[in-house]
Amino acid sequence: MTKNNFQNILVPLDGSKYSEKALERACEFVGAFGSTLYLIYVVEKSIPVNLLDRKEYLELLQKFGNNILNKAKIKLSKKGINAKTILKEGNISNEIEKVAKKENCNLIIVGNKGLGTVSRLILGSVSSKISQSSSCSVLIVK
Amino acid sequence: MTKNNFQNILVPLDGSKYSEKALERACEFVGAFGSTLYLIYVVEKSIPVNLLDRKEYLELLQKFGNNILNKAKIKLSKKGINAKTILKEGNISNEIEKVAKKENCNLIIVGNKGLGTVSRLILGSVSSKISQSSSCSVLIVK
Repeated sequence: MTKNNFQNILVPLDGSKYSEKALERACEFVGAFGSTLYLIYVVEKSIPVNLLDRKEYLELLQKFGNNILNKAKIKLSKKGINAKTILKEGNISNEIEKVAKKENCNLIIVGNKGLGTVSRLILGSVSSKISQSSSCSVLIVK
Repeated sequence: MTKNNFQNILVPLDGSKYSEKALERACEFVGAFGSTLYLIYVVEKSIPVNLLDRKEYLELLQKFGNNILNKAKIKLSKKGINAKTILKEGNISNEIEKVAKKENCNLIIVGNKGLGTVSRLILGSVSSKISQSSSCSVLIVK
């Protein structure tokens, strides 16, 4: 497979049906362009947590994130697709951008809504932030 | 070719290098998914024109738009790709969305910058507006 403009694809996951859809589209790119997939879950550190112990809450999110990544990896392997999974902590869009650069991704496929536990209230805010700030192309899946 | 999620693709053109790049990516989708391409140029009617006669200015833009569409069509036909061209007048993102719906497009491929004679000053504003308001997926090419 020759190098193309969809060689390395980053798919941010958050357990929502929107990121599920983004992952499905990503599989179509693998089939068509032989792309390598990177799946990322970002534990949002900037969440203002009053009700729960902060450390405990972050641990819960880590567990949740690892679960999502593992489930996605298994789902893809059943389709014969191998994906690399990455768990990060920090600001969602910043971490996504950092990983996209580090792994030389030329495309980020992101769901239109979801992404971010708190920002789920501000639907689509992360996807639009990524599409504006990212230095690589962004596919917003609806 | 079976129906897929990238069957009908709309590519807004404005004569900028950014929309050229979007068109190049669109060609890769044709190769991979057998997509049908729709190329659109929108004559921005909402431009506040003081220096020139408004009617004359719009006619110039129409000519410019037709030129861009024709050139793109010729360029694609040399690659063996047939594309449908559409010239519209009105608000850029509104017209793009209307055509996307009318032609049952499931993807809009848009350059990150450019699009819009005046809004070129507000770089990327149209692409981010489309990605937010469009009911189909949007690929922002960088």
